[in-house]
This record gives sequence, C-alpha cells and structure tokens, in this order.
Amino acid sequence: MITERGKSVYKGVAIGKISVHKSGEQPVKRVHVENIEAEKERFYAAKTKAQEQLKGLYDKALAEVGEANAAIFEVHQMMLDDDDYIESIINMIESQEINAEYAVASTGENFAAMFAAMDDAYMKERSADVKDISERVIKVLTGASDQSMTADEPVIIVADDLAPSETIQLDKSKVLAFVTRHGSTNSHTAILARMMNIPALIGVDYSDDWDGKLAIVDGFEGCIYVEPVKEILDKKEAVRQEELKKRELLQTLKGKENVTLDGQKINLYANIGSLSDVASVLQNDAGGIGLFRSEFLYLENSDYPTEEEQFQVYKQVAENMGGKKVIIRTLDIGADKQVDYFNMEHEENPALGYRAIRICLDRVEIFKTQLRALLRASMFGNISIMFPMIISVEEVQDIKKILEEVKAELKEASIPFKDVEIGVMIETPAAVMISDLLAKEVDFFSVGTNDLTQYTLAIDRQNPALESYPYFRVDHTAIMRMLKMIADNGHAGGCWVGICGELGANMDLLEDFLRMGYDELSVSPTFILPLREKVRNTSLK
Amino acid sequence: MITERGKSVYKGVAIGKISVHKSGEQPVKRVHVENIEAEKERFYAAKTKAQEQLKGLYDKALAEVGEANAAIFEVHQMMLDDDDYIESIINMIESQEINAEYAVASTGENFAAMFAAMDDAYMKERSADVKDISERVIKVLTGASDQSMTADEPVIIVADDLAPSETIQLDKSKVLAFVTRHGSTNSHTAILARMMNIPALIGVDYSDDWDGKLAIVDGFEGCIYVEPVKEILDKKEAVRQEELKKRELLQTLKGKENVTLDGQKINLYANIGSLSDVASVLQNDAGGIGLFRSEFLYLENSDYPTEEEQFQVYKQVAENMGGKKVIIRTLDIGADKQVDYFNMEHEENPALGYRAIRICLDRVEIFKTQLRALLRASMFGNISIMFPMIISVEEVQDIKKILEEVKAELKEASIPFKDVEIGVMIETPAAVMISDLLAKEVDFFSVGTNDLTQYTLAIDRQNPALESYPYFRVDHTAIMRMLKMIADNGHAGGCWVGICGELGANMDLLEDFLRMGYDELSVSPTFILPLREKVRNTSLK
Repeated sequence: MITERGKSVYKGVAIGKISVHKSGEQPVKRVHVENIEAEKERFYAAKTKAQEQLKGLYDKALAEVGEANAAIFEVHQMMLDDDDYIESIINMIESQEINAEYAVASTGENFAAMFAAMDDAYMKERSADVKDISERVIKVLTGASDQSMTADEPVIIVADDLAPSETIQLDKSKVLAFVTRHGSTNSHTAILARMMNIPALIGVDYSDDWDGKLAIVDGFEGCIYVEPVKEILDKKEAVRQEELKKRELLQTLKGKENVTLDGQKINLYANIGSLSDVASVLQNDAGGIGLFRSEFLYLENSDYPTEEEQFQVYKQVAENMGGKKVIIRTLDIGADKQVDYFNMEHEENPALGYRAIRICLDRVEIFKTQLRALLRASMFGNISIMFPMIISVEEVQDIKKILEEVKAELKEASIPFKDVEIGVMIETPAAVMISDLLAKEVDFFSVGTNDLTQYTLAIDRQNPALESYPYFRVDHTAIMRMLKMIADNGHAGGCWVGICGELGANMDLLEDFLRMGYDELSVSPTFILPLREKVRNTSLK
Repeated sequence: MITERGKSVYKGVAIGKISVHKSGEQPVKRVHVENIEAEKERFYAAKTKAQEQLKGLYDKALAEVGEANAAIFEVHQMMLDDDDYIESIINMIESQEINAEYAVASTGENFAAMFAAMDDAYMKERSADVKDISERVIKVLTGASDQSMTADEPVIIVADDLAPSETIQLDKSKVLAFVTRHGSTNSHTAILARMMNIPALIGVDYSDDWDGKLAIVDGFEGCIYVEPVKEILDKKEAVRQEELKKRELLQTLKGKENVTLDGQKINLYANIGSLSDVASVLQNDAGGIGLFRSEFLYLENSDYPTEEEQFQVYKQVAENMGGKKVIIRTLDIGADKQVDYFNMEHEENPALGYRAIRICLDRVEIFKTQLRALLRASMFGNISIMFPMIISVEEVQDIKKILEEVKAELKEASIPFKDVEIGVMIETPAAVMISDLLAKEVDFFSVGTNDLTQYTLAIDRQNPALESYPYFRVDHTAIMRMLKMIADNGHAGGCWVGICGELGANMDLLEDFLRMGYDELSVSPTFILPLREKVRNTSLK
C-alpha cells in the first residue's frame, strides 16, 4: 500500500480504480513539406474542425454548468480566430516550408510565453488557453482522439492539472475523484469538485504506474491510499457509506422549511463569489443569496467593469434566483484582494487600510457606476444592496446621499428601477458599538464574522505565526457578546439581522444564533441542507 | 523675508539671531612625515587629551541630564581605547609615513563605513560615534577649538544635524531653538529640545548665509521666518509672550493637587520610553509613571538584555521616583517595533500579528527573564507590572501562573521581592468586551487608546492613504462608549482604571473622562501641568 498526502480541496471519500491522465501535449516533429498550399489547407481545415468542437463544448457546458462556466469556450473560439495567431502559423508554413503541426505548436508556445510575461493578471491566464487551443488543433491534424479521459467504469482521475477543455468533456458519472499534482484551492479542479460534489486532492506527488490500480481518496484527511490493505479499505468504505447516507438524507430536506421543533424559523441563504455559483445555490435549495461578492467583476477584468457589464451580471443573478432575495455587496477590494488598475499604494497593514467602502467614498465615480448597474438590475428580481466596512453613521448617511443622486439621474433618464432594501455589513468593532445608531439608517445588518473577529482579537487569521495561537477561539466570548449586542440593537431599530461570515455555518453555535434571534444565516451553498437538518432537530425550549 | 517649512519636533516660539553651525569636519590634508616616532607620539598625546575631554563631558552630562544620557561619553572613551582602532592608525603612520591627522581621518572613515554596513541596528549607530571621536582627536591635533557652538547672546542653532558630543557642550542658556536639515522625530535634536523645552524643527532646507540674521522659529506651525517683516514679528512675539505666561503659570501648579472645583481627584502620571525621560517626569511634577515602555531595553541592544541589565534599569527608575508608582509594561515588540535578534518572519499585517504578550507567552524564557528583573527591582520602590495586547482571560491566568513560577524560583534562591500590583492594557476590542471578566483577574486597567482605536475603526493611523479619511475621529462614539464600558466594568470588579494612550492628553475630553470616573491619566510629561490646570478649573456639577 502506498500512502500519499496532499491538500484536500473538497471533502468526501471515493474508492475505485485510478486513471492516470497524461497531458495531451505530444512532442510535435518538425517535417519539411513540399506542397505548401496543401499544408496551409490542412491547417485551415483543422481550424474549422476545432471551432466546431469548441462550439459543441460550449453548448454542452451551457446546458450542464451554466453560461458563466461555459464562457471559456467562447473565449477559445475567439482566440482561434485571432488574426495575429493565424498569420504567425501561415507565415511559418510558408517561409520555413514546415508541417502545420509544428507551425501551430511553435506559434502556440510563442503566444503562451508572450501572455505569461504580461503584467495584467487576466492576460497572464490566457497563456494556458492559447496552449489549450493549439493542442486542440494539433490533435485534429494528427487525428488523435479528443476523449483522452473517457473510461468504461467510474475512475479516480489522477493528473498533473486539469484544463477546462479537458474536464468539460468528462462524463461526470464516470468520475469518482480528482487528484492532481498542481492546482490551488481555487483552481479549476477545486471548483469542479465542489460542483460535482466529489472529493479532490491537490499537491499529490503521484507516479504513472498507479494507472489501473485500486485506490482510496480521502478528502477528509487529504490522503490517497494506492492498493490499500483490507483494514484501511473496510474502514474507509464504512466512512463512504455513512457519507452517502448523510447526503441522501439531506436531499430529502429539499423544499422543507428551516424551522425548529418549537416553531422558530430562520432564513438560510447562500454566499457566492461569481455567477457560476448560482447553480449550486439552487441545487442546495437556498432561500436566497445572502452575500453576493461583487469583487470578481473587478478582479477578473483588466479595467474597470462598465455599468453595462455589471448590469448584465446582476440582472442574470436576479433572474436566475426567480424573485428570491439577492443581497449584493458593493465592491470590497483592498486588503488581500488587490486589483492592478486601481493603482493602490503598498500598505504596511492592508487589513487596516484603504479598502472597500473607503475606496468607494473616495473614488465616487466607481461607486456610482456600480450603484447605477445595481438599481437598473433591481427591475429583474429581488435585489438588496449591502455596504462593507462601515465604521460610522456619517458614512451611511453619505452613501444614502450618493444613492439618491444616482436614483435622480436614472429618473432623469427615464431608466426604471425599484426601491431596494439597503443594509450594512457589521464587521468592525466600531459598527458593533454603534449598531443602535446604524439600525436607524438601514433595513438590515449582516455580520461579517471573519473581519469582525480579526479586528476584535487583533489577529490576522492568515498569519502563519498565529495559526496555532492557543488563545484564539472562533466562539470567543467577546465575539459572542458582540453578536448578541448586534441582534438586540438591530431588532430594536427595526432591522432584520443575519450573519454572513464563516461562523454562520458553525453547527455548534447554531442554537446560540437562534436564541439571539438571528433572522438569517448566509453560508456556502453546501452548508444549507446540513444546517436545515440541524435547525429542524433543535428545540429552544 | 524667507519662510521655510520643516517638521516640528517640539512646540513653542523662539525669536533671535541665527547661528549656522558648520559641521566640525575639516578637510584633512595628507602630509609626508620624516620622523615617524614623533608623529606616533603626537597621536598618543592627542588621544590622551581627547580622553580627558570625554571624561569631562561625561561628568558634565551626568550632572545635567543624568546617567542614561551621559552614557554615550563612556562609550566614546571605550571606542577611543579600542585596540583595532589604535593599531590601524599606528600602522598607517608607520607604513605610509603620513601625518597623524590623516591616519586618524582615514581610520575613522574606514571604521565608520564598516559599522554602517553591519546588519545590527546598534552597531550601525556606532558609525556616527567613531566619526565623532576621530574628529575630536583631529581637532586636538590641529589645535582647533572644541567649542564651535558657543555664542555670546542666545541664538537659534541651525545645523545639518546635532551630534551628542556637540550638544552637550552647549551653554543651554544660550540656545533659543534648534533647526536642523536632518534628524527624525526621535533624534537627538528632538530629545534635547524636549528636555530643554525649546522649539525645534527638522527637515529644514537652510542656507549658510542665514548666519547672524534675525529669525522666528515657530514650533506650532513648523516654520522658520528669516528676517521677518514687522507684521509677522509682532504676531509671533505676542504668541511667544502668551506661551511664556502660560509656562510661568503652569510652574505655579507644581506641588498642587489634581482636583476639580467640586472635589473629584484624578492621578496624572507620565508615559516614558527610557531611563533618560525620568528627569522630565520629575520636572513636570507627575504623580508617578503610568507607562514605562520597556522596549528600549530590547531595541537598543544587539542581543537579548540580560536579567541584570534589566534589573539595573528598573531599579534605577524605581529609586529615582522615590516611592511614587512606576508601572512597567512588559515587552511590546512586533508590529512597527522590530528587533533583529528576535528573528521574526515578515507579516502581511504586523499590527494584527505576532507581537507583545503573544511573543512572551510563546517564548516564555524571554518573558521570565523580564519578570525576574521586575520582581527583583520591586524592592527598590513602588513597581507595578502591566501586560500588553491582552485578548482573553486565559492569557491573564497563564501569565499569573508564570509569575508565580518566577516568584517560587526567587524564593528558592532567597532573592527578595515585593508583591506587586498587576494590570492589563485594554487595547483590543476583545479586552473591552470581556473587561468585566478581566477585572476579576487583575488590580488595574490602563486603556491603550491608540491601538484600541486602530482595531476598533480598522484604521492604521500610520497609513498615509487614510490620513485624511473624513470619517475618522479620535473621539469616535464607539471609542467613547468603550471607555465608559471599561471604566464601569473595571470599577465593578474592584480595579482602578486609567488611560495611557494619546487620548488621555486630549483637553477637550478631560471632562468626559472625569465623569466616567477614570482614576488616572498617563500622558507625556509636558502635558501633566496643563492637564492639572484644566482639572482644577473643571466642575462636574
């Protein structure tokens, strides 16, 4: 038995045969060709075929995982039609009298290197895409199969890394788990595993001869056992069965109310970070979206997203959620989320720095663009707007003034919008201490427990030097007292109150939150059903 | 009239003639000498004379500004006797057949460069000292006057920078103000100005031809006016007279009680950062030391200060204060105070990082050494111990356990100590929220308003991007409510409560603090008498 450790990016246990997926990249030979015109024709034909494949992949992705996740194949189609790219390939065939495969491979490498050298994060990422499309064309040219990951029985996919175009072609019913050498917590592998609800490990040092061997992937412990001994096999099979039962049980909770045995109700909403997460929100039967982080619009762009770009996204989420509440948080960059084109100075303590609403109140035009997009989108569903990093009543009053200005502008231009609920994140100790005053200004509170804990305990949780600080507790008395204070002040001021930080998904504290009277918990989609189960088994009497 | 701006390091207005002080550094000529033995004798004689000067300076400094400030001249004496230094000079005279002046200058430069290149902060600073002693010897050799800053009438000293050996020789009654091109808020210039109670500016781009001209130094506005017009002169003279009157009035408050018109008393203590500040504490009639920052012992050393080194310092402060309360805060490094030999990792948000008590509870031996020194020093005065950056009751309980261990060790070794009062800094929002629980564990609270404000508002006050954030207020409602909560909880739990952050010196909030029942304010020594005056003119009825 071989035991290898990795980093788990999704929990669960899978047992099955390994399929080691070799990268599609084949060494391409340079061959001298006589008939240059025929070689050029070969390339054009292959390009057309590759375009057809991409169109097919786009349609497949659209149906399976929604527009946002499918978009990458549109990008690939556009890249494959790029004039510079095609010109480079044709030039190479003509001037060097070489085969199309070699011209495509060389051009692909050159372009990939060029993208990789760019400062802009978005353009950098295009490096992998240009490689991806070049390989696709080469495969068509060489007649290689495009289905390198197909299997007859469900397998554990082991690979260096997974490219979007490879994974979308997977028959999802044939995949038990992902195990990769590279990738990060937020890589494609991780996202896919989350969507497919199967365990996944990254950072695993595998060997090619694992192919075809029986293995156990344990996403709880971050381990893969190859050719496991019977004792381990039995133990892990028991865990797997238990998980399976749990998941089935949870499925029976869909459509049911979040109500305690003694009749207290609570809303269970979902936190999401991009459009593509909406599928998971619906799958897990969330009552709404309690926190839509709008940063991805800025982080994934190479320039400020336009009002129209933002409007389309907000509209789509609102429509997809079909009238359920969608709480969109305005831009929260700064601190650990940096965006090149904002040109921000280096800060000694970015967490205590120029971030979120502080940027919006300083660069008001950026803020107004987002507010216009949000108000316009309000016509297409049930949108609320939430403001991060509030420390004072004056900020909220100024925000409301700006919102009124935007409304007046829209009215002037005869652009329709609805009156939306507005709320504030309670994530600074200052906001807690003045929550009675803030409650008079807004419709709801949502407690950002991650930042609130960071500031209250003066501990950056991402600081490795404090990772094991023995006096840190997520349920620190100071935080629990603050949560009570927030709920009491919010309710007294006529606000509904929720929690959208990680603490909201803490099963051990659920009863405390119910007793404090919290109206809503907003959590990662996969926590919705487990929380619902716990609520339904709780009695506060 | 010429107006130049600078950074004020001490307030006040001075009017008088400028004396531009040229650096003593003279170009030293290289001269071939025939009689090498005679040249070596010249050097040895000059060295002996320089040693005598330094001994004289030490005695003068000891009498005027105390042992801590005088120590630098002991260091200089030792450096001048350093074998390597002398050997280098003698070798140069012998091998190159050159004059002693040139050998001393070259050696001085070489040694200064060598020190400057060292990683260790303490050794780096020795670079200026080796230059200082070399110049002294050269002056003796050339017969140049050692009294370059003497003046007949009081003058405004304008210079590139001030060296300790230059300033100590100043006739203090002949100096109206300091204006330098270099230096920092904590440089020798600033310290001297504070001690002498005269205005000082740094970072001023002066011109040599200012020498002898009339000027006004305005330490309130950070300006120097050279050859001022009559209008400015009259205006500033009025300010100066008013200041003078105020200072005289304040002197009459010495020895008086800090009591309001309706009889409420409050203790006014001083914050100090090193031994040399004690003089100012006594001059300003502070009732005690409310915060003695022990970091200087670590920051000024190239290795961990020994128990004995620390003991000597604590003992001296306790003795100098003659039975008045001396509250010593245990080590608070980390964040913006870095010490090389602690070998700390780079942190993304050092203010939310591994600092203060977190280091002490992690590296217990360092902590125990300090506690042993403190307990031993308790026999020589009225010492209390205060712990920084507390976030939990468990920390305090563990600290008390460690303190008991140290006491047991001392008892075992028959080393006497007194039972000291212990207190905690309330400087995290967590400590505020659990102040009722903390009050049961300690004898007193001291609120560190700087850090508390930083964490509560999530604003790093040293971040230039937020310097003018319009929603920042030192008297933020959240902070004022916290201060009330701390006082109420502290008193209910039997603690006395004080403030040792900057806010404590805020005249506008004094009445609020009195009404909240604060027992103590600990402030910079020069704020003591102004606060006393304000207290004595306040009525809470």
